Amino acid sequence: MEATDVWTLASAALVLIMTPGLALFYGGLVRVRSVVNMMLFSVSAMGVVGVLWILFGYSMSYFADGESGFAGNPFKDFGLIETDPATFIGVGFGAVFAMITTALISGAIADRVGLGSWVLFAGVWATLVYFPVAAWVWGGGWIMQLGTWLGTPEVIDLAGGTAIHINAGAAALALAIVAGKRVGFAPGSHKPHSVPLVTIGAALLWFGWIGFNGGLATEVGEAGLILVNTLAAPAAAILGWIITDVLRGKKPGVVGAASGAVGGLVAITPSAANLSPLWALLLGLIAGAACALAIDLKYRLGYDDSLDVVGLHLVAGLIGSLYLGFFAFDDGLFTGGNGGLLLVQAIASFGVLIYSFVVSLLIALGVKALTGLRVPSEVEETGIDSVAHGEEAYALVEPAEASLPSAR
Amino acid sequence: MEATDVWTLASAALVLIMTPGLALFYGGLVRVRSVVNMMLFSVSAMGVVGVLWILFGYSMSYFADGESGFAGNPFKDFGLIETDPATFIGVGFGAVFAMITTALISGAIADRVGLGSWVLFAGVWATLVYFPVAAWVWGGGWIMQLGTWLGTPEVIDLAGGTAIHINAGAAALALAIVAGKRVGFAPGSHKPHSVPLVTIGAALLWFGWIGFNGGLATEVGEAGLILVNTLAAPAAAILGWIITDVLRGKKPGVVGAASGAVGGLVAITPSAANLSPLWALLLGLIAGAACALAIDLKYRLGYDDSLDVVGLHLVAGLIGSLYLGFFAFDDGLFTGGNGGLLLVQAIASFGVLIYSFVVSLLIALGVKALTGLRVPSEVEETGIDSVAHGEEAYALVEPAEASLPSAR
Amino acid sequence: MEATDVWTLASAALVLIMTPGLALFYGGLVRVRSVVNMMLFSVSAMGVVGVLWILFGYSMSYFADGESGFAGNPFKDFGLIETDPATFIGVGFGAVFAMITTALISGAIADRVGLGSWVLFAGVWATLVYFPVAAWVWGGGWIMQLGTWLGTPEVIDLAGGTAIHINAGAAALALAIVAGKRVGFAPGSHKPHSVPLVTIGAALLWFGWIGFNGGLATEVGEAGLILVNTLAAPAAAILGWIITDVLRGKKPGVVGAASGAVGGLVAITPSAANLSPLWALLLGLIAGAACALAIDLKYRLGYDDSLDVVGLHLVAGLIGSLYLGFFAFDDGLFTGGNGGLLLVQAIASFGVLIYSFVVSLLIALGVKALTGLRVPSEVEETGIDSVAHGEEAYALVEPAEASLPSAR
Repeated sequence: MEATDVWTLASAALVLIMTPGLALFYGGLVRVRSVVNMMLFSVSAMGVVGVLWILFGYSMSYFADGESGFAGNPFKDFGLIETDPATFIGVGFGAVFAMITTALISGAIADRVGLGSWVLFAGVWATLVYFPVAAWVWGGGWIMQLGTWLGTPEVIDLAGGTAIHINAGAAALALAIVAGKRVGFAPGSHKPHSVPLVTIGAALLWFGWIGFNGGLATEVGEAGLILVNTLAAPAAAILGWIITDVLRGKKPGVVGAASGAVGGLVAITPSAANLSPLWALLLGLIAGAACALAIDLKYRLGYDDSLDVVGLHLVAGLIGSLYLGFFAFDDGLFTGGNGGLLLVQAIASFGVLIYSFVVSLLIALGVKALTGLRVPSEVEETGIDSVAHGEEAYALVEPAEASLPSAR
Repeated sequence: MEATDVWTLASAALVLIMTPGLALFYGGLVRVRSVVNMMLFSVSAMGVVGVLWILFGYSMSYFADGESGFAGNPFKDFGLIETDPATFIGVGFGAVFAMITTALISGAIADRVGLGSWVLFAGVWATLVYFPVAAWVWGGGWIMQLGTWLGTPEVIDLAGGTAIHINAGAAALALAIVAGKRVGFAPGSHKPHSVPLVTIGAALLWFGWIGFNGGLATEVGEAGLILVNTLAAPAAAILGWIITDVLRGKKPGVVGAASGAVGGLVAITPSAANLSPLWALLLGLIAGAACALAIDLKYRLGYDDSLDVVGLHLVAGLIGSLYLGFFAFDDGLFTGGNGGLLLVQAIASFGVLIYSFVVSLLIALGVKALTGLRVPSEVEETGIDSVAHGEEAYALVEPAEASLPSAR
Repeated sequence: MEATDVWTLASAALVLIMTPGLALFYGGLVRVRSVVNMMLFSVSAMGVVGVLWILFGYSMSYFADGESGFAGNPFKDFGLIETDPATFIGVGFGAVFAMITTALISGAIADRVGLGSWVLFAGVWATLVYFPVAAWVWGGGWIMQLGTWLGTPEVIDLAGGTAIHINAGAAALALAIVAGKRVGFAPGSHKPHSVPLVTIGAALLWFGWIGFNGGLATEVGEAGLILVNTLAAPAAAILGWIITDVLRGKKPGVVGAASGAVGGLVAITPSAANLSPLWALLLGLIAGAACALAIDLKYRLGYDDSLDVVGLHLVAGLIGSLYLGFFAFDDGLFTGGNGGLLLVQAIASFGVLIYSFVVSLLIALGVKALTGLRVPSEVEETGIDSVAHGEEAYALVEPAEASLPSAR
């Protein structure tokens, strides 16, 4: 093994823990009656998408020599039977990306969707949206060739501003619209049930993000730049969110600070290898402030993106992707004096946004037609955990007689 | 340092966090009155076994040139004084394996055993069972030579189907039998007190398992295969467990899904370097389903393996070890047309099972004779945390006057 | 990238998670009414110190050729604009050290200080204390040259006995004195609200500490020794704390065991590359026992170091730094027969202690003059989380009507 193989391997472990981290982040943000349901969405996404990736997802996620079009041929590496084991570290690294991206969407539908509906959506979405978009962005597809076609610099998307965050954010918007609002949806309703759980989740996300952004770096300078920027942007975004809250009269809390860190991490995802640290700080500050403001949009616009997948991932994903058009080394509008990069960043960003939104909407409508998508409102009110899962998040108070055999 | 040294080093950190991860997994599974006791068993195992490993455990865990028999000479590397520091990364990697294996057993005796009894058991068990068995499986002992003796392929046990999981599972069975049932033991009694805590624990376990299975890989293809299989099997096992539950009318929950992941990880532990990913998926599916069914055995057979160490580790450890006999590259019954590998896998598996069960039973009986092993039943009913540890897991509600000096 | 670059990179991720780990450790140790405030202190430290490090902290933390004096010139690498990216992995590794060190201090002022006051203190403290002291210890400053000046061996401080733990511990003492005691401060008051949260935090700390101590090791033997000692000392310290508690009639619990592990880790921080594992075990045993006793000092001496930053970090930091003077390879009083190393270890330790204490006292007094430092006592009694942050750690019980629109 080479040193860079070891780094990708370690990074795969780092990215692996992001999906359970997300389960905890989302699990902490929901009300106590929906924690099991919410966490199970991330865990089941690890199951479904992990299996599909090995069966045909990896195959679809890149174009082999001579392939072109919508996605890679799903049968060429079916089950990884014919695949060269020398590529398996990369295959594993890709698997954990597919898991987390799909799981991200689930934050939009807290409290109100059954496991079967989610698993169906997740499997189809990974197949029709994630695997192809990954092929477009990293596997030799149209987004990688856009610059050549247009005579501009090539699109920059290090670790998935488009393929991960805009993609999942747009899907979340579509799914939230189809699922409809929760009972009682209003500003200040549905407070997080556990701030420590949110903190644990955000901690694992930031930790894993070092591997997420950096895992494929091969040069020491590039790896170092990615590391520094993956520290700089979320640090500044924590401050950006807190300052924004304080300026508009909201008291600063941990949920905001943690969300700010996530917003900063999303924004630096496409850009960590192409910005100097000072610009990464500015980007983080902007992303933290913008996300703090963006999460209130859902109340004005009337879609119930329960845990702010749109407000964090779509918004910060767009900010990070477009920011490169201005500040990327050499080629940005302000750093290179030319708008070509900005143009292709915008095309890639909105191309993925539109594709993901439309196809996700169709999949969500299809699932709704098949399963109804939502649980009955009385289940939602009683608590989806106890009714649909037969499991409640906590049993902190025991009946005094619980341990007495005579009580049975 | 070579790249592979860095990988083993990083893997040692990954495996290190598995034991606290287990503390949290087990801690979440017990009732709220026993959390401190349960977590302290894992933490104290890190203390006792960590110290013993450095004193003489490492020495016992391998046969030096000319050594043979029950275990390595415990004095040859006593305190690591005479040991070449160039081997220390491996020594540290071995230390964290010893910790987690011993800690695994403690899940069998939730709610009812005092810390002193546990620490005594743990120290003696590591000395008489873990260190020797590790020497048999990885340190040049009889299990490593079985194939040569019998003219078959050699036993395959990558990261401890026998030495870790069958070993700990058999010991757990013995200890559970000697400790006896909890007051009120019955299906559906003793529900997990915190599903988020279970999730956190399982997340850290899966994360660490990447290093657990892969930490000694040196070839890029082998490392990649182990990575992919350590994702594939638990992903499929999550589905296997959920599907099994749904098919038999149980509602799907996070505790099951997380337990499924653990079952899949156990099953892939011996086999991750010797199965193609498609067979790893099948193994995970089988292990998830089998463990879902196996955890109910304790009610029928009447041993109180409180947190299902037998149902997960012994069962999935056997499945994973024997499955190799059918599907291992080249040498399995179905892949090579010869039963030789299956034979030695079975001998190694049942050899370790029997040895561990018998010696653990004797140690448990010895501890019982010395300390009584169990706490009095009124302590168990009142809560072992408050009585034996003077510490309760949570203080979520404060008396209103708690902060007023006048109230003291 | 070289293998050692990969290791430093992975170690930066490991150290990154220590600060959220600390947020959880501290968050679990406070009462339920102050969890958000306590965790936010660590999270905000990541924001402020992360940004300052990139702006000028890294510049200040080392002396370039020709520089000398108080600290490095803060403008030479301002914003990392002129900095060679080949050094960025080290810059990132340094960033996460600066974050955790500053965050450590916050444990001294639980329950009673506002976020603005803390952020101000943290930013000024990092600038006037941490960045310069890092330059003294690792950046070519006076502590690195002490041995040459005095004709003794050079000071040994691998990963920050002086620069991190004595430094943060002395600052914590100063800040606790200036902040004053909490309402109701007395032995047994203010019990930890969540032992599982404490366990999670301690787990992440130990895990990250492998990278903290080892991240700059380049030789395989050195890296292995650091690994083994970073397992040995906390393992022994867990036992040291538990035994001490049992001997003095206190029941053993998880908070003690976890604190013991932290004490052992602090003690091995300066010394992990310069002690044989057997001496590391002894050091851990001593540190665990000493910290168990030291945390009661605050009640006798009357300063309210709420979460025992002094009792753990200052005490074990001193123990670990001075212990080297006796037992370091070749140069200790007992291992080399000469007191020279002990002398410079003592000068470095007490030099940092005094500098940090005095300057921290002045900063704390300055912040107190500007902001008052403490929140009003009625806020402290009502709960700083609800009043100052508008966010409570948990919402575990929902009003039955919470989800009914008619209830709004």
